Amino acid sequence: MTNKDARTPASAQIQANGSAGGSSDAEAGKSIGWHKAYVEGSRPDLRVPVRQVHLTNGQSVTLYDTSGPYTDPHVETDVRRGLPPLRENWIVARGDTEEYAGRPVRPEDDGIKHTSPRGGLRNLDAVFPGRPRQPRRGRDGQAVTQLAYARRGEITPEMEYVAIRENVSPEVVREEIAAGRAVLPANVNHPEIEPMIIGKRFLVKVNANIGNSAVTSSIEEEVEKMTWATRWGADTVMDLSTGRNIHTTREWVLRNSPVPIGTVPLYQALEKVDGRAEELTWEIYKDTVIEQAEQGVDYMTVHAGVRLAYVPLTANRKTGIVSRGGSIMAAWCLAHHKESFLYENFEELCEILAAYDVTYSLGDGLRPGSIADANDEAQFAELRTLGELNRIAKRFHVQTMIEGPGHVPMHKIKENIDLQQEICDEAPFYTLGPLTTDVAPAYDHITSGIGAAMIAWWGTAMLCYVTPKEHLGLPNRDDVKTGVITYKIAAHAADLAKGHPGAQDWDDALSDARFEFRWEDQFNLALDPDTAREFHDETLPAEPAKTAHFCSMCGPKFCSMKISQDIRREHGGSQAEIEEGMAQKSKEFAATGNRVYLPIAD
Amino acid sequence: MTNKDARTPASAQIQANGSAGGSSDAEAGKSIGWHKAYVEGSRPDLRVPVRQVHLTNGQSVTLYDTSGPYTDPHVETDVRRGLPPLRENWIVARGDTEEYAGRPVRPEDDGIKHTSPRGGLRNLDAVFPGRPRQPRRGRDGQAVTQLAYARRGEITPEMEYVAIRENVSPEVVREEIAAGRAVLPANVNHPEIEPMIIGKRFLVKVNANIGNSAVTSSIEEEVEKMTWATRWGADTVMDLSTGRNIHTTREWVLRNSPVPIGTVPLYQALEKVDGRAEELTWEIYKDTVIEQAEQGVDYMTVHAGVRLAYVPLTANRKTGIVSRGGSIMAAWCLAHHKESFLYENFEELCEILAAYDVTYSLGDGLRPGSIADANDEAQFAELRTLGELNRIAKRFHVQTMIEGPGHVPMHKIKENIDLQQEICDEAPFYTLGPLTTDVAPAYDHITSGIGAAMIAWWGTAMLCYVTPKEHLGLPNRDDVKTGVITYKIAAHAADLAKGHPGAQDWDDALSDARFEFRWEDQFNLALDPDTAREFHDETLPAEPAKTAHFCSMCGPKFCSMKISQDIRREHGGSQAEIEEGMAQKSKEFAATGNRVYLPIAD
Repeated sequence: MTNKDARTPASAQIQANGSAGGSSDAEAGKSIGWHKAYVEGSRPDLRVPVRQVHLTNGQSVTLYDTSGPYTDPHVETDVRRGLPPLRENWIVARGDTEEYAGRPVRPEDDGIKHTSPRGGLRNLDAVFPGRPRQPRRGRDGQAVTQLAYARRGEITPEMEYVAIRENVSPEVVREEIAAGRAVLPANVNHPEIEPMIIGKRFLVKVNANIGNSAVTSSIEEEVEKMTWATRWGADTVMDLSTGRNIHTTREWVLRNSPVPIGTVPLYQALEKVDGRAEELTWEIYKDTVIEQAEQGVDYMTVHAGVRLAYVPLTANRKTGIVSRGGSIMAAWCLAHHKESFLYENFEELCEILAAYDVTYSLGDGLRPGSIADANDEAQFAELRTLGELNRIAKRFHVQTMIEGPGHVPMHKIKENIDLQQEICDEAPFYTLGPLTTDVAPAYDHITSGIGAAMIAWWGTAMLCYVTPKEHLGLPNRDDVKTGVITYKIAAHAADLAKGHPGAQDWDDALSDARFEFRWEDQFNLALDPDTAREFHDETLPAEPAKTAHFCSMCGPKFCSMKISQDIRREHGGSQAEIEEGMAQKSKEFAATGNRVYLPIAD
Repeated sequence: MTNKDARTPASAQIQANGSAGGSSDAEAGKSIGWHKAYVEGSRPDLRVPVRQVHLTNGQSVTLYDTSGPYTDPHVETDVRRGLPPLRENWIVARGDTEEYAGRPVRPEDDGIKHTSPRGGLRNLDAVFPGRPRQPRRGRDGQAVTQLAYARRGEITPEMEYVAIRENVSPEVVREEIAAGRAVLPANVNHPEIEPMIIGKRFLVKVNANIGNSAVTSSIEEEVEKMTWATRWGADTVMDLSTGRNIHTTREWVLRNSPVPIGTVPLYQALEKVDGRAEELTWEIYKDTVIEQAEQGVDYMTVHAGVRLAYVPLTANRKTGIVSRGGSIMAAWCLAHHKESFLYENFEELCEILAAYDVTYSLGDGLRPGSIADANDEAQFAELRTLGELNRIAKRFHVQTMIEGPGHVPMHKIKENIDLQQEICDEAPFYTLGPLTTDVAPAYDHITSGIGAAMIAWWGTAMLCYVTPKEHLGLPNRDDVKTGVITYKIAAHAADLAKGHPGAQDWDDALSDARFEFRWEDQFNLALDPDTAREFHDETLPAEPAKTAHFCSMCGPKFCSMKISQDIRREHGGSQAEIEEGMAQKSKEFAATGNRVYLPIAD
């Protein structure tokens, strides 16, 4: 939204906070580029970050900002200390939680065996050195969830925060959460986050996956990937680590993350039983969930919809079960010939999650892994079970979203969102892509970006990104950026198609800059200013070219924008004036020399 | 399609033609990878190239191939000689064309001024040295177009050729061309092309734009971009050169291109009047069209729909007129206050195009250049005129397609194709994207790939690619590749969504390879084998990893594909057998040690 529009709440106040980017020759006080700024809410400790883009024509544009304190030059950050606990006072003030000793951290939480000669916590690779803290949970098993508050009619500071971010009234936020149509993932043990909301009435959100594996990568890399992903616009991050140091990596990520963190607890539980799915038990799983809830994980993928009876439905698929969580649960069911322990113990799991305000992300363990398997009986059988589990979770006041596919050709995408909304009482849908073809490994950010944009237009609330490395390897920094940018495009294209209030203001501001040859403004408004500027400079590196009234595609003679500006100059005014004055203008145009192009030496 | 399916015509015959790619350790006689092969038609000089992918399981997959003789190791190519004139005998045998002296080539055709001290043809930078030839045209003003033949009930060798390429009967090809629902662009002066067809009943096609500009790039670069674009799958190439050497660049491109070449003659005409739009005349334009038709341009964008009365409709747009051709014509109308000379002389233009079988691409000069301007009155007013011009062109037996936008948010895309099909009697739609948001310069291949996939699903026949440099600069080799691959994804995703016969076979073959951990097959089947292999090797470079039953995303313990294979092994057979045998299988599974993961050292 531009600041000409009076859409920010009356109480809001922009606080410019020093230059953080943009043109290098910007002078202090007359700076062009972008700045981190804050919109203040109804209390001084409620300050919503925005990216304020200052244009050369004196206007400014306010954009949603996910980058956290890292882009604020007035805040000193240190990954060894972690971010300040922004929400701590809000949580404490509610008076419904208590600190407690918590579950002791054990070597096996980090994948270190009892038999390991190195055993013991002090041998962990990198214990987080930040401020000491005890975990917190709801008193006497109370549900301390945003859903519970919303249902009671309370507007929490978190709700007000997201209302400012989304340019809607706090009451709309409360209503959508209370109805189960939106979630605000915010574990009481993750006070560092800047609250955000996931629901179809709000801006479409993007999740980025990070995580080490048994094969590669380190704690430092994962923390860096998290800050890098949020720098480019990731609204949440899932830590899908599977190798050594799972607990410690997660601790570092949580303490430094300005966005909600999601996990799949089953991955860590499986590590604790040395990769033997059949040795998993409800007790090990539950212990892992508590471990992660105490650390502050905001939402957890739970594959409780993979029921025993559905496993055979996948036997004749082209690509079987491609979800890791789904295949682990299928293997467990197969080994024991018993109903899933996640399904059987789902109510107890609800009680745990409610005590920390961990949000469910009900996993689609049977999602299709190829075009051939899309929308099959296995997939939709599980979806019906997710609908059932969603209703149970709501009884326990646990916020819930539903995960979706996967690989789906375009003509089968709409059925996915329509069925999900119907079966799951409009709970937020959270989809991986979907990929619209299988033939382009190394470009699956694009095959899936297409499907993501479409399914988000039709109502999906959050998109899980796919990087160019999907199916091939672990994403590096560049892949994370490419994945996030691609998905921000899909999300914004959907916001436009849904007619989200204010979404088009961003496009309009950039198109105005383009039409008026304000190159610096075009770069600064771009989703990725660095790459836009770099691409321009490849062809026309000289500084004057950035103010030139043409660009390198057409050269100075053929610039259609230039001609259009002449037309506008000739034809400005009402339609009637235009019609009347046209012949006269034509004569004047001839009198000025009839030149619509800038003269250049030939 | 896989060769298990009997979809190739009975007369077809695969001729393997030596190794052209794939695994480096492939042995002769037992080669894995891909080869250029040919499917022979009803006559020995009708050989349709295909890309034959040989899998490690002994099967093979046949893919559409646009790369021309360059990927055939048995053919020696030399850009200074040009490609062999594949269609020459077919054209001559029809007996309805004649060679003639042709229009003399003048220095100004290459942008060299009469006043230039260097004047004269021998001073052109690089006259094409290939075989001497005279231009050819229809005798006595006859229409020598594929449309005229199709209407007479004739199946030309060109039609048979595309029938084999598309796996349909030649009669379907003839019918679609006769009805004006498809075009087969094939100038009688471009005998080098491998015929292809553009229409909604056929595979969605992709065009790549190349072309130098006043600012940058050379003849050699443009020829290389053309071969590079077709190497990655471009079905046609438009040469949009605007700077010096327009004529000569085009000659080199045409003589070396295996795909139809399109142009916008207005660009060259404007060069001839030194960039002064108001000095353009019908005579200069007509002369340029004849010049290009004699060279062999297969289709020409003609902005005859930009009528005087529509120019004022653009005055209050956010981004005015963004089409170069559209803005030139608007400037001309503005200067003279007269109806467009293209509109006024359209019938004479039809006579010229019919004599060479140049296909019209009726340009959308008033297409929207921003989200704000999508689907406005200016755009649709022009579309109605294009419908009128399409009917005139058909009277003259000129093949015709219609160009479309542009910048359009997702919810406004379908209206574009629906209206175009209605107004233009189902003539093939040829769209640029559309871009679904304006906010991502440097990623407009993605913003537009989303729109392109959708509009192609709904019936667009050909997609004009957009590269990452759109709005920023001239694409280099890498940008051309990225643009083509992105658009091949959009086109194939649309083929799948349309249920095009055989389209899914490619996805199925790749997904089978993925499920069975046949890494080399997965690479060789990929749209871009090189990048897929490179990305895999970045994480797991060792050769054994390419046969490993896991990949670097999950590592060996968590591989869901591996678990799925175990499930299939346990649960193979009919649903009834599966249900009955499940408990028993469970016991057997336990007896084998209950290990669903490969053991690894920890």
